Amino acid sequence: MAEATSKPVPLLKDELDIVIPTIRNLDFLEMWRPFLQPYHLIIVQDGDPSKVIKVPEGFDYELYNRNDINRILGPKASCISFKDSACRCFGYMVSKKKYIYTIDDDCFVAKDPSGHDINALEQHIKNLLSPSTPHFFNTLYDPYREGADFVRGYPFSLREGVPTAVSHGLWLNIPDYDAPTQLVKPRERNTRYVDAVLTIPKGTLFPMCGMNLAFDRELIGPAMYFGLMGDGQPIGRYDDMWAGWCIKVISDHLDLGVKTGLPYIWHSKASNPFVNLKKEYKGIFWQEEIIPFFQNATLPKDSTSVQQCYIELSKQVKEKLGPIDPYFVKLADAMVTWIEAWDELNPSDAKHANGVAA
Amino acid sequence: MAEATSKPVPLLKDELDIVIPTIRNLDFLEMWRPFLQPYHLIIVQDGDPSKVIKVPEGFDYELYNRNDINRILGPKASCISFKDSACRCFGYMVSKKKYIYTIDDDCFVAKDPSGHDINALEQHIKNLLSPSTPHFFNTLYDPYREGADFVRGYPFSLREGVPTAVSHGLWLNIPDYDAPTQLVKPRERNTRYVDAVLTIPKGTLFPMCGMNLAFDRELIGPAMYFGLMGDGQPIGRYDDMWAGWCIKVISDHLDLGVKTGLPYIWHSKASNPFVNLKKEYKGIFWQEEIIPFFQNATLPKDSTSVQQCYIELSKQVKEKLGPIDPYFVKLADAMVTWIEAWDELNPSDAKHANGVAA
Repeated sequence: MAEATSKPVPLLKDELDIVIPTIRNLDFLEMWRPFLQPYHLIIVQDGDPSKVIKVPEGFDYELYNRNDINRILGPKASCISFKDSACRCFGYMVSKKKYIYTIDDDCFVAKDPSGHDINALEQHIKNLLSPSTPHFFNTLYDPYREGADFVRGYPFSLREGVPTAVSHGLWLNIPDYDAPTQLVKPRERNTRYVDAVLTIPKGTLFPMCGMNLAFDRELIGPAMYFGLMGDGQPIGRYDDMWAGWCIKVISDHLDLGVKTGLPYIWHSKASNPFVNLKKEYKGIFWQEEIIPFFQNATLPKDSTSVQQCYIELSKQVKEKLGPIDPYFVKLADAMVTWIEAWDELNPSDAKHANGVAA
Repeated sequence: MAEATSKPVPLLKDELDIVIPTIRNLDFLEMWRPFLQPYHLIIVQDGDPSKVIKVPEGFDYELYNRNDINRILGPKASCISFKDSACRCFGYMVSKKKYIYTIDDDCFVAKDPSGHDINALEQHIKNLLSPSTPHFFNTLYDPYREGADFVRGYPFSLREGVPTAVSHGLWLNIPDYDAPTQLVKPRERNTRYVDAVLTIPKGTLFPMCGMNLAFDRELIGPAMYFGLMGDGQPIGRYDDMWAGWCIKVISDHLDLGVKTGLPYIWHSKASNPFVNLKKEYKGIFWQEEIIPFFQNATLPKDSTSVQQCYIELSKQVKEKLGPIDPYFVKLADAMVTWIEAWDELNPSDAKHANGVAA
């Protein structure tokens, strides 16, 4: 299968937007210039809208602050979080491109073991353009990579794979730990470069991190909602987790793939574990019930578009998670609002929604 | 969780046997001497029993040829394959140790990226002595390795993991490809060293290769049957696959873990693809039905020992796979014979079989 990836990797310049949530000047882009300057940036400014965010010269961008979000979405802006990087999903909604790459502003260019700068986006594009293999595990990892293939015993009927919806990249240096682990292991750094990409098998959930994430908006975009976090909400730092559980259940239902592994970025700075603990502690309890809920969630056969799946999931969230805390009723309603807003901003999407997986 | 692996790795000298199926002198052991000489070897000589197999001096071993197998098992010897490396499973049965490492005689010591010889067995021991995490995927791979942990969003209730039953190692140089892939890509070599160990999630099957494999005999031994292959059988090169499907379904049922990844061995020589095609071609068809069978197989709650699970599985094989070919009826019977022979040679095992997972 090496042929698939030994070809030059297409830039997808006109088909990919980069979404960056931020509250500060985007100096970190200087380091990314060789890799990201060809692309259009969608900057979602969080917090005080009167603050001016500086973007390094030469980058092509549009910037939305809270006033813009309120103006564009009107009352539906309630589904977009404030004072939390969950606000980034507004960028997914206003994009008109097929692919999204989202990256945090404390993520720098990492180096591979031979000391070369890693072009993270190029690897994400490779991941998204090659199929996934969720139905059977390949022990030599991604069979579509150069120098790899399906091993003996891999059913031939499954070797075409399924379309890849999500590419989840990893982090060197500061690992993505929860507050308790940060507190217990303040000095732990991730120095292990694992040269692998793999498909997360069907039926298996994973903790999706939003720091270094790419996806196919046409295949899964409407499910990539980062929930209600931050200002006025009882929880934070579960925005990407929420999206990860939802996109995995829906990808499994629609026979789409989710890959994880390469590329690495260099995560420069650990966030404050005490602040994180305050944001996370309810999530630490709740996830013990939320995860079994998602593990057991099934979607009806006639839910064939991402929108239909997502609305169906919102009903199940209200019914099954609502009893845990009123927050989940609010979240279930926000999931519906999100889809309404998505369809409003993406009318052709909405029209064809029934055909997405048909 | 780093503490678990930063301790020195125990040798397990008195608790581990190395099982080697062979038809030739075991010169390959010279290279392994620093790592394997401390252990007891169980050599299962395949083919002509009158041939003398030379073992390098200094190794402690017992050797069984076909005459020995027939003498020890009597009529039950029919369940042990002849003229196929599947015969190796006889060694699992006669061992009295807790752990087994099995390796092919064309596997040499591989080097890690820094040029050091890899002590494959030491890594297998690490894998087997640390828990597995089949219920949720950890994006930084094995959370029990030094320098790694569970990432944000990993449920705390699942962080104890489950006992590891199987450690599946990989191969540099000649990859474990089927005959069609060998024919299409005769020059492909595996040069990618992926520095990872991971748990194969619950509910996911994988193609288990017997070349470089370790397992906990007490936890999963009676399911590690390599089936009927070779002489007088319509199929070959599916011995380890068969065992892999069975041990995975049973491990999932008994809440045991299966890990894959490190360690690598150096696989020196590709077997003849034309010969392989002849052995494999029925398997290539059959696996398209066998794999869905195993994917959907469920075991009754009251099957709490490996033996009970295996007997139950044999019934399902007979019923569901029997219609494909009479071979599967014969195989189902051999599965029962295997358990009978196992219990005969391991009477205390049999007595406690009901307690294994209780």
